[in-house]
Amino acid sequence: MTRPDGRQNDQLRPISFIPNVAPYATGSVLVSFGDTRVICSATIEDDVPRWMRAQRVEGGWLTAEYSMLPYSTLERKPRDISRGKLDGRSSEIQRLIGRALRACVDLKKIGQRTIWIDCDVLQADGGTRTASISGGCVAMAIALNKLMAEGRLKQFPVKKLVAAVSAGVYQGVPVLDLNYPEDKDASVDFNVVMTESNEFVEVQGSGEEAVFSSEEMTAMLELSRKGISEIISLQKAAILTADRAAPADLASLTAAFGKR
Amino acid sequence: MTRPDGRQNDQLRPISFIPNVAPYATGSVLVSFGDTRVICSATIEDDVPRWMRAQRVEGGWLTAEYSMLPYSTLERKPRDISRGKLDGRSSEIQRLIGRALRACVDLKKIGQRTIWIDCDVLQADGGTRTASISGGCVAMAIALNKLMAEGRLKQFPVKKLVAAVSAGVYQGVPVLDLNYPEDKDASVDFNVVMTESNEFVEVQGSGEEAVFSSEEMTAMLELSRKGISEIISLQKAAILTADRAAPADLASLTAAFGKR
Amino acid sequence: MTRPDGRQNDQLRPISFIPNVAPYATGSVLVSFGDTRVICSATIEDDVPRWMRAQRVEGGWLTAEYSMLPYSTLERKPRDISRGKLDGRSSEIQRLIGRALRACVDLKKIGQRTIWIDCDVLQADGGTRTASISGGCVAMAIALNKLMAEGRLKQFPVKKLVAAVSAGVYQGVPVLDLNYPEDKDASVDFNVVMTESNEFVEVQGSGEEAVFSSEEMTAMLELSRKGISEIISLQKAAILTADRAAPADLASLTAAFGKR
Amino acid sequence: MTRPDGRQNDQLRPISFIPNVAPYATGSVLVSFGDTRVICSATIEDDVPRWMRAQRVEGGWLTAEYSMLPYSTLERKPRDISRGKLDGRSSEIQRLIGRALRACVDLKKIGQRTIWIDCDVLQADGGTRTASISGGCVAMAIALNKLMAEGRLKQFPVKKLVAAVSAGVYQGVPVLDLNYPEDKDASVDFNVVMTESNEFVEVQGSGEEAVFSSEEMTAMLELSRKGISEIISLQKAAILTADRAAPADLASLTAAFGKR
Amino acid sequence: MTRPDGRQNDQLRPISFIPNVAPYATGSVLVSFGDTRVICSATIEDDVPRWMRAQRVEGGWLTAEYSMLPYSTLERKPRDISRGKLDGRSSEIQRLIGRALRACVDLKKIGQRTIWIDCDVLQADGGTRTASISGGCVAMAIALNKLMAEGRLKQFPVKKLVAAVSAGVYQGVPVLDLNYPEDKDASVDFNVVMTESNEFVEVQGSGEEAVFSSEEMTAMLELSRKGISEIISLQKAAILTADRAAPADLASLTAAFGKR
Amino acid sequence: MTRPDGRQNDQLRPISFIPNVAPYATGSVLVSFGDTRVICSATIEDDVPRWMRAQRVEGGWLTAEYSMLPYSTLERKPRDISRGKLDGRSSEIQRLIGRALRACVDLKKIGQRTIWIDCDVLQADGGTRTASISGGCVAMAIALNKLMAEGRLKQFPVKKLVAAVSAGVYQGVPVLDLNYPEDKDASVDFNVVMTESNEFVEVQGSGEEAVFSSEEMTAMLELSRKGISEIISLQKAAILTADRAAPADLASLTAAFGKR
Repeated sequence: MTRPDGRQNDQLRPISFIPNVAPYATGSVLVSFGDTRVICSATIEDDVPRWMRAQRVEGGWLTAEYSMLPYSTLERKPRDISRGKLDGRSSEIQRLIGRALRACVDLKKIGQRTIWIDCDVLQADGGTRTASISGGCVAMAIALNKLMAEGRLKQFPVKKLVAAVSAGVYQGVPVLDLNYPEDKDASVDFNVVMTESNEFVEVQGSGEEAVFSSEEMTAMLELSRKGISEIISLQKAAILTADRAAPADLASLTAAFGKR
Repeated sequence: MTRPDGRQNDQLRPISFIPNVAPYATGSVLVSFGDTRVICSATIEDDVPRWMRAQRVEGGWLTAEYSMLPYSTLERKPRDISRGKLDGRSSEIQRLIGRALRACVDLKKIGQRTIWIDCDVLQADGGTRTASISGGCVAMAIALNKLMAEGRLKQFPVKKLVAAVSAGVYQGVPVLDLNYPEDKDASVDFNVVMTESNEFVEVQGSGEEAVFSSEEMTAMLELSRKGISEIISLQKAAILTADRAAPADLASLTAAFGKR
Repeated sequence: MTRPDGRQNDQLRPISFIPNVAPYATGSVLVSFGDTRVICSATIEDDVPRWMRAQRVEGGWLTAEYSMLPYSTLERKPRDISRGKLDGRSSEIQRLIGRALRACVDLKKIGQRTIWIDCDVLQADGGTRTASISGGCVAMAIALNKLMAEGRLKQFPVKKLVAAVSAGVYQGVPVLDLNYPEDKDASVDFNVVMTESNEFVEVQGSGEEAVFSSEEMTAMLELSRKGISEIISLQKAAILTADRAAPADLASLTAAFGKR
Repeated sequence: MTRPDGRQNDQLRPISFIPNVAPYATGSVLVSFGDTRVICSATIEDDVPRWMRAQRVEGGWLTAEYSMLPYSTLERKPRDISRGKLDGRSSEIQRLIGRALRACVDLKKIGQRTIWIDCDVLQADGGTRTASISGGCVAMAIALNKLMAEGRLKQFPVKKLVAAVSAGVYQGVPVLDLNYPEDKDASVDFNVVMTESNEFVEVQGSGEEAVFSSEEMTAMLELSRKGISEIISLQKAAILTADRAAPADLASLTAAFGKR
Repeated sequence: MTRPDGRQNDQLRPISFIPNVAPYATGSVLVSFGDTRVICSATIEDDVPRWMRAQRVEGGWLTAEYSMLPYSTLERKPRDISRGKLDGRSSEIQRLIGRALRACVDLKKIGQRTIWIDCDVLQADGGTRTASISGGCVAMAIALNKLMAEGRLKQFPVKKLVAAVSAGVYQGVPVLDLNYPEDKDASVDFNVVMTESNEFVEVQGSGEEAVFSSEEMTAMLELSRKGISEIISLQKAAILTADRAAPADLASLTAAFGKR
Repeated sequence: MTRPDGRQNDQLRPISFIPNVAPYATGSVLVSFGDTRVICSATIEDDVPRWMRAQRVEGGWLTAEYSMLPYSTLERKPRDISRGKLDGRSSEIQRLIGRALRACVDLKKIGQRTIWIDCDVLQADGGTRTASISGGCVAMAIALNKLMAEGRLKQFPVKKLVAAVSAGVYQGVPVLDLNYPEDKDASVDFNVVMTESNEFVEVQGSGEEAVFSSEEMTAMLELSRKGISEIISLQKAAILTADRAAPADLASLTAAFGKR
C-alpha cells in the first residue's frame, strides 16, 4: 500500500504554526496540517457566561466556535447563517474543541473571564478538527502569556499542552494523519487528543459503514501517540517565538506571497 | 468503593425492552436501563432524502432523531422549539445513533426507503444515548421483520445487531453502565458501541476536566465488551417475541400501572 | 347509522388514566381515550414568568405545551424543531389547554410558582386535545396534592375539576367522542370543556366546510355534558389512587407489556 | 348597568366598510367596528399550495393572514419579525378567519387559484377578529366579482355571505359587540360566525378565569344572531357599491382627512 | 422624451400628508407621493435600548422599521414572518430612515425615551423610501409637538425638518421623483435626503447595471434640491394643521371614500 | 490638522493584493488597506438561482456575501449564527458589493453560472466595504481568467475594473481613505465606487449626526476619484501576476510570518 502523497504510515503531514495572523485577537495562529489550514484565535473577555454567574461558580470559562469558510472546500459550502442554523457536524466539533482545551487549563486561575477560541477553516483537506485543537491550544497559550506579561494573571493557568491527530485504517493498513483522499476511503476514523504527558483527553473512533477490531484500535492509538508527541514539540516552538512576534507588516506579507 | 446503587463494578442496571408501545410506528420499544427510559421507534418511509435522489445513490437511508421530553429530567428541560434550535448535545447524540445503526444494516437491501429512528427520553438517569442505540436497534429490527412478513423486502437487511453501553472511572475505579449520580462525579466517561460479533462500531471517551491512562481505557473497554454481550442477548429475546406481540390493550395497561 | 367501532351515539370510548408514568415530573398520567394516548405531566417551577414579575401580579401562573410525537400518526409527523417553528394547530391547542386549566385553579393560592403542563401525544386517533385537557387536569391535581403533602401549600388550589370531550355530526347524526375515522368525515366538530359542576369553560364548534343549526348545537352540547360527567368520575378515581402509587418498577412493566 | 359608550345591550358599534383602500389588491376594504379598524384585502394568485398539487385536489384554496400593525395598540406592539415568530394569538385568529371564509365559498369553482385574505389591524379596540372576518368576506366578494367581470370565472363561487360578531357577559349582563374596555372586564367572551341564512359556521366561547351557564350561552348566541344579521346588510351594500368604486384619488383623500 | 405620466422632468408627483390616520400612535400620517402611499407613525416609548443604558449614553434614541404590506405590490409580497427573516432591502431602507431622522433631532433633548418610526407601505409605485423619510419626519414632528403640549418636553428637539426625494436618468434624461415604470427602466437611481436649509443628510446613487457621469450626478442633485424644497413646504403645512386635527370620525371616512 | 497616522489628506493607506490565499476558490486575494484586511474569494458555480431559471433570464448571476470574523474587531464580535440572523449592516454591505461588481461584468457572457463573491474581514480598521469591493473585483478577475484559460468561456466577461474608496470630513477637512480612528470621529462618510474609466458606479454619502454641504461633497468626490485611480493600478498588477501564482507552499508561509 502506498499513501496518496507518498508518506510513511506513521508520518505526519508538514505541520506549521504561524502566530499573530489576527492581530486584534489576544492570541492567534494560522495552523497548517498539510493543505488543511485553520485560523485559530483566542480572545479574552472580562466576563463569564450567565449560567456561571447564576450558579456562582468560581473562576472562568472557555468556549470554542468552529466554522468552515465557504471557500474552504472544493465545492462552495453555504454559510450557516444562509441555512439558518449551525450544522450538526460543526456543533459537534466545537463541543469537542471546547472540552479538549478545558481539560488543559485551570479555569479557577483565569479569574472572572471567558476565553473564546475561534477556529475558521481556510482550507479543508482532512483533519480540520485535530488541526483546530492543536492550533487552538497554541492561540490560547499565546493569549495567556500576554495576560501574564501585562500582569493581569498571577499564575500561568495552562496545566499541560494538548494536541490532537487523526488515525485511520486505509486500504486495510493503520495510518497516521489522514488527508481528505485517505479520509474519504478509510474504513475507520480515529481522532485522539492527548497531553504532553502522554495522557488521553479524548478518544473518538468510528467506522461509519464498517467495524474495527481491538488490534486495529491499538495500532491507531499507538500511531496517534507518536504523532501527538511530534506536534507538541512544534507547538512549544511556536509559543516560545510568538511572544516576540509582532503582527505582520505589509512588506513581509507582500514578500512572502509575491514569490509564489 | 461502593456504587451508589450497590451494583458490582461490572454489573449492568436492570435492562428491559417492552415492544410495541407506539403502535402507529412500524416498530417500537420502550427501553429501560435502570431508571433511564427511552421510547424508541422505527418508521419506514417510502422515499429517500433529496441528496440521495440528486446523487442517484442506490438503496435507502437511515436517520435518527433524539429528544429529551421536558419532564425527563429532575428540573424541567425547555423544549427545543421554545429555544428555537436543537441543542448541541442532542444534535451530537442523534448523529451518533444514526452512524451506529447505519453500520449494522445493509442500506442497499432496503430499497428506496428511509428508516426514521426516533428516540424520546421519558426519564433520564444517565446513559440515555446508549439506551437509545440499544433500543433503536430493537425497534429497527422489529420494523424490518414486519416488512419481511409483508413481503416488501426480499432479504433481511440487518447484518448484525449492535448495542451500546457506557463505562467510566468512578472514584478511581472503572465501572460499567453509569447512572446519573455516578456519571456526574465520574472523571472519565466512555460510550462504546459494538456488534454481536464483538467488533467495535464507535468508541467515544472523554475526560472533560481530567485525563485518563491507557490502562484505564483498556479496563473500560473490557467492561463494555462484557456488558454489550449481555444486552445483545436481551435484544434478541425482545425481537423474537415482538413479532407475536399485539399493541397494548387497555386492560393490560391498567393492570400493569394500577398496582404501583 | 352505525359508528365505525359499534359504539352508541352517546357512548365514550374506553377511557383510562394511568398515573406516575413520568416519575421526574411532579405529577403525571398516561391518558387513553380509546386508541388516543397522551402523556400528560405537571411540573412545578419555583418561579413566575418575567411579565408577572414586571407587572407585580400576585400569585402564580400555569402554562401548557402540546406536541405530537413523530410516531403518533399513521404517517410520520416531522418534529417542530425540524420545521423551525411550532405549527399553528399545536399553538392553538396548547393555548386552549392553558386557558381551560387556569379556569379551574386559584393561581393566587399557588404562590410564586409556575405549573407547566406538558402533553405529548403517543398515539393520535382523534380527540387529542380533549384527552390532553382531561389528563392535564389529573396530572395537575396529583402534583398539587404532592405539594400539599410536602407542606409547601396551605390550601388546595384546585377549585373544581375540568374535563373535555368532543362531539360532532357524523353522517347526519350527533355523536359523542369522535375517533379519527369519524372526525375525518364529520361535518361539524365541537370541543367542550366543563367543570364537575356542569358549568361551561370553553365551547368551540366549527363546521369547516359546512354549517350547523341551532338544534344540532344543542344536541352536541347535551352529549358533551353527559360524557364529561362520566370522565370526571374516572378522573377522581385516578387522583385518589395516585397519591399512593409508586413509579412503575421493572417487573410490573415487563408483566404488563409482555403478555400482549 | 350602563355600557362604557352608552350603547344598548344589543346594539352594535357604528360599522362601516370603505372599499378599494388598497388598489393593488384584487379586492380590499377598510372595515370599522367603532374604533377598531382593519385593512382587509383579497388577492387572487393563479397557483395552489404545493400540498394541493401533490394530492391532486381539484379546485383552489383560500388562506388568511392576520397581523396587528405596531401602532394599532395603546402600547406599541413589536412586529412578529422582530420577535422571530408569529405569536400564538395571531396564528389562532388567522386559522379562524381562513376556516370561516372557506365555509362560504365553493373552492371547486375558483379553479387552480389561491385566495389570499390579508387582515392588518390599524387600530385595535376589541373585536379585531370579528371585524376581520366580516371585512375579509367583503374583500373576497369584491375580488371574485372582479374576476367574474373579467370573464375569468364562469360561476360566482360565493355560496353565502358570512359575518362575525362578539358577545360577552359584562358586569353580569350579556351584551353585544364588546369594545376593548368591556372585553378586558368581561367574564365570558364569545365569537360567533354565521351565514346570511342564520346558520352557524363557528362558535367559540371562553371564560378564561370564569365559567358560564347554559342560559348565558343562549343569550349571547341570540345577541350574536341579531348583530350578524345587521352586519350582513351592511356587507351587501358595500359589495354592491364597490364594483363601481374607483380607487381613492388625492382630492377626495385630502378633503376627507383635512377637515378633521 | 415624454414621461409616462406626462410630468415635466423637474416636476414632483402630487404629494399629500393626511395626519392622524393611526390614532393610537403619538403621531401619524398617511403620505402619498402619487400612487405610492405609506402609513408613517411615531410612537414614544419611555425607555431606551439596552445598549444605551449599558453605555450610560445621555438622552434618547430613534429607531425606524419599514415594511411593505403584502397587497402593496402588483404581485402579492409574502410577509417577512412567512419567510422567517427581514429581507435585505427592507433592512437597508429602515437603517436609512433611522439615520436620516436622527440627523434632524437632538436626541439629548428627548430624555430617556425612544422614538419608534414605523413605515408601512400601503401601495408601492416607486419612491417608497423617500416617501417614508418625508412622512416619518412629519409623524415625528406631530408626536413631539404633542409631548411639548403635554409639558413632557422642555425644548422642541427637532433641529431642522428633513425630506427626501429620488431622481434618476430615464431614457438618457435626468428626471425628478420616479414612479415605478420609470424606476424600472432608469439607468441610474439617486435618493437624496436634505434639510430645510439645503444641507445634505444622505446621498445614495447607484447605477446597478450601468454607470453615470459627474454631469449626470450634478443634474440629479439639482433636481433633488428643488423637489425637496417643495416637499418641505408641504410638510410644514401638515405639521401646523395636525395639532388641531382630531382622529377621523366615521362620517368623514365614509364621505371621503364613498364618493369614489 | 494632522491625520492620526500622519498621511497627506489625499493619501491612501498602503494597499496590497496578495493572490491565491484560498486555493480551493476559483480566485482569491487577501486585500489590505492599511490594517484593514479582507479575504476575498470568487467561486464559480455551474448553476443559476432558482428565480433566474423560473423567469428564464439569459446568462448568469453574481452574488456577494460579507462577514466579519469574530476576532476582526478590538472587542470580539459574536457570529451571525449565534445571534440567529445576519446583522443589518452586513446585509447592506453585501448588497452593495453585489451591485458594484455586477456593474462591471457582462453576465450574459458567463453562461448559466453563478459567481459567488465571499468577503471575510480578518482585521477591521475602517473601510472594510471599500476593501471588499476592490478585492472582490480582483478575485473575480482571477477566477474568470482561470475559466478563460480552461476554455470554459469564449469571451472575457469583465467590462471594466471597479474599485472603491472612502472619503470623509475629519476635523473639518476632507480626507481620503479613513482608518477607524478617523472614521469614528468623521462628521461625514462617503463611499465611492468607480470604474477604471472614471465613471461612477455607486456613491453613498451620509452624515449620521451631521449634515454636509455641496462643496464638501465635491471635494470628497474628487479625492475618491484620485484614490480609485491609484487602486486600479494595483488591481491590474495583482491580476496580471496572479495567473502565474501558485498557492502558498509551507516554506514561504513560514518564512514570511516567521520574521515578524
